[in-house]
Amino acid sequence: MAKQTPRTLSGFMELLPAPQRQMERIMEILRETYSLYGFTPLDTPVIESSEVLLAKGGGETEKQIYRFQKGDADLSLRFDLTVPLAKYVALHYSDLTFPFRRFQIGKVYRGERAQRGRFREFYQADIDVIGDGKLSILNEAEIPAIIYRTFSALGLKRFRIRVNNRKILNGFYASLGLSDKAGDIMRTVDKLEKIGPEKVQTILTEDFAVSPEAAREIIGFISTGGGTEEVLSALESRRGPNETFDQGLDELKTVVRYLGAFGVPAENFNLDLTIARGLDYYTGTVYETVLLDHPEIGSVCSGGRYDNLAEYYTEKQLPGVGISIGLTRLFYVLGEQGMLNPELPTAPADVLILPMTEDLSAAIALATQLRDNGVRAQLHCEEKKFKQKISYADKLGIPYVIFLGEDEISAGVVACKDMATGEQTKLDAGATIYRIKAGLDARNKGFVIRE
Amino acid sequence: MAKQTPRTLSGFMELLPAPQRQMERIMEILRETYSLYGFTPLDTPVIESSEVLLAKGGGETEKQIYRFQKGDADLSLRFDLTVPLAKYVALHYSDLTFPFRRFQIGKVYRGERAQRGRFREFYQADIDVIGDGKLSILNEAEIPAIIYRTFSALGLKRFRIRVNNRKILNGFYASLGLSDKAGDIMRTVDKLEKIGPEKVQTILTEDFAVSPEAAREIIGFISTGGGTEEVLSALESRRGPNETFDQGLDELKTVVRYLGAFGVPAENFNLDLTIARGLDYYTGTVYETVLLDHPEIGSVCSGGRYDNLAEYYTEKQLPGVGISIGLTRLFYVLGEQGMLNPELPTAPADVLILPMTEDLSAAIALATQLRDNGVRAQLHCEEKKFKQKISYADKLGIPYVIFLGEDEISAGVVACKDMATGEQTKLDAGATIYRIKAGLDARNKGFVIRE
Repeated sequence: MAKQTPRTLSGFMELLPAPQRQMERIMEILRETYSLYGFTPLDTPVIESSEVLLAKGGGETEKQIYRFQKGDADLSLRFDLTVPLAKYVALHYSDLTFPFRRFQIGKVYRGERAQRGRFREFYQADIDVIGDGKLSILNEAEIPAIIYRTFSALGLKRFRIRVNNRKILNGFYASLGLSDKAGDIMRTVDKLEKIGPEKVQTILTEDFAVSPEAAREIIGFISTGGGTEEVLSALESRRGPNETFDQGLDELKTVVRYLGAFGVPAENFNLDLTIARGLDYYTGTVYETVLLDHPEIGSVCSGGRYDNLAEYYTEKQLPGVGISIGLTRLFYVLGEQGMLNPELPTAPADVLILPMTEDLSAAIALATQLRDNGVRAQLHCEEKKFKQKISYADKLGIPYVIFLGEDEISAGVVACKDMATGEQTKLDAGATIYRIKAGLDARNKGFVIRE
Repeated sequence: MAKQTPRTLSGFMELLPAPQRQMERIMEILRETYSLYGFTPLDTPVIESSEVLLAKGGGETEKQIYRFQKGDADLSLRFDLTVPLAKYVALHYSDLTFPFRRFQIGKVYRGERAQRGRFREFYQADIDVIGDGKLSILNEAEIPAIIYRTFSALGLKRFRIRVNNRKILNGFYASLGLSDKAGDIMRTVDKLEKIGPEKVQTILTEDFAVSPEAAREIIGFISTGGGTEEVLSALESRRGPNETFDQGLDELKTVVRYLGAFGVPAENFNLDLTIARGLDYYTGTVYETVLLDHPEIGSVCSGGRYDNLAEYYTEKQLPGVGISIGLTRLFYVLGEQGMLNPELPTAPADVLILPMTEDLSAAIALATQLRDNGVRAQLHCEEKKFKQKISYADKLGIPYVIFLGEDEISAGVVACKDMATGEQTKLDAGATIYRIKAGLDARNKGFVIRE
């Protein structure tokens, strides 16, 4: 028979078993951490009606969307988890209780040009809090705590949560009479770090007809650096240009005020006036998260406060705040950087049982007992040489091998070998299980990411 | 602004938060149980190249497939998890260690005619063991144990795993000189329970030109009923027609022999010679699982042994055995039958904290402490009346509410109300956490399914 060459589409991540286990661990940690903050898991369809998914219309994403006909239906694959959330909240509004806090970890699709480290199918891990009409600033203040706990639980230490408030930016540009150019200006000053202040000044004055004085003023303002207290007092000294600016400053001060109570250390946080995060959508606090030793990756967790989640579907005012982790890309980068801890077990089983008797009853009963006690056990009964079976455990990194022959069965013991140390014990089943579980606890102590 | 009516496509399950939590619990139990047997989690793309996915070609499924162009690429959404597994194993053959044991819980797509309880996007939860060239019968013998533990862990008691062996059927039909009609005959006798032996006899003789003697012989054989031992001895009395029959019988006896050691009670198992499960693919033991009080649902977990997983992709002989649960449909049916235990908590948080002071620091610090101790805590700081906040906890089923006012803060205690009993305690934070965790343990004791 002619064979079809097996292949996986480029831009689609397909992991081998060991890295897949690492990915699963990361997802478990995200689910656990998000749950600690009262977010409920959600799952929405990958396919939506195109008119629903593209209600916002236009934009750069539209070209990238996987869109197709099936029968009479015009369908699209979701390209993020925010639009499906907006649809969900508008559709199920009367069945939901607000504030509505949900997390979702799911695949999204964008037909980007394929290149190394860019994916067409990728996981996003999102949380959002949606209010009905209003939403307390406390939800914005809580986001850094969630980011901090999540990244710490993954094993990261050297990261920084960078925070700004869009009201401060909008108020500031309004005070210069530049509200209508705010978008262009934000896009430009976003490049400050990369291209330097002179070039930013040139672009502002030449491309966007900002006066040289205003351009200098903007650069001076945006460059306000230093620790959290310094930035706040610099902003405080500018208080008063308009209500928007002052409200943004008050919000920012509330966010900063509760960092300690939320358990966020000062070194993992800073205020950064260059951050704007998209142009139309965000209206209050905005967030980015950078790995200090890998600034080239850019932000690994971003988001912000918005006023109107579902404006394309409902008249209801639904303000919210959310963040998103581009999980597939993050996982790829961590792997490239050698930051996935290879010491954490990735084996499919904790114990490999090698029966040495014709009758397998005793070996099977032992496997059943191990499983009853939460130990992942695999029986190896294939026609292979002893050496090959040991090599099987070795290749998969299975930490314990149990041999069960006539002698052990009649003596009521189990021969159990620790594959790392070579140490072998002959104990009864109960004591063996106890030893294995203690060993597994020790092996599973590390973090999934190491710096 | 004109609004787009929000809607979810028909045939696509989108759950409200409480049932979603139940679905997540079921998935967690499947992951845990499958892991106990040494299966490793796998995740493959939802989209594959059409030529790869449809390498087998033709068939009834092809019309149902979501297939579309993106640029030059002819793409399809996976319609099961078996074809992607075959591709995966063929593609990554040299990186895998055999026997390769994997589980996968993922969405698949079939554009079936939409009707109640039929889904176009649905989860399958599969396990497979793949051998390289050979695979021990023990893997087939282990499958009933996995099904038993899985369904028991979900809370089901009244289910039965029905087992047959295709070699017995093939050997039997060969002994009647009916090998070339075996497919048609199996399809017909499959309806024995529904249409009765007379109609089966008529179809066999009139539609498929089986002689009346052979037809009687077939019906007599297939109707062999009774307990496991009775069926086995009836089969034993027929031993000898050919090698295939005898090998099938030996395999079946091995499966039965180890049930006890595998911990499968006799009442959850039976041999059923009517089971064939598809025509080309399975070659050895085959499995179905029925809920005794809901036979109308059909099999909720099915599978079997096959000889050649990846024949469309590789010359390698890759035998295997696997089972699949149609999770979305099962979940739907359980819901319809009122079998999802409403007493298991589905709240997004364990505790709702109501701060009663202007300064939120103490309330936030308490929330942080709860989370540090693994308690899911939500702060409620919205501008709402006290009664509305209590009603929020009520609606979401949050089991504990904590009030934190000046008095409590200065006394170093926490007022914590059990929403079910109304009992209120004033204890320090540590003792409160202890009480909450004990209460949560008690609440989470039940099973997700109740009969």
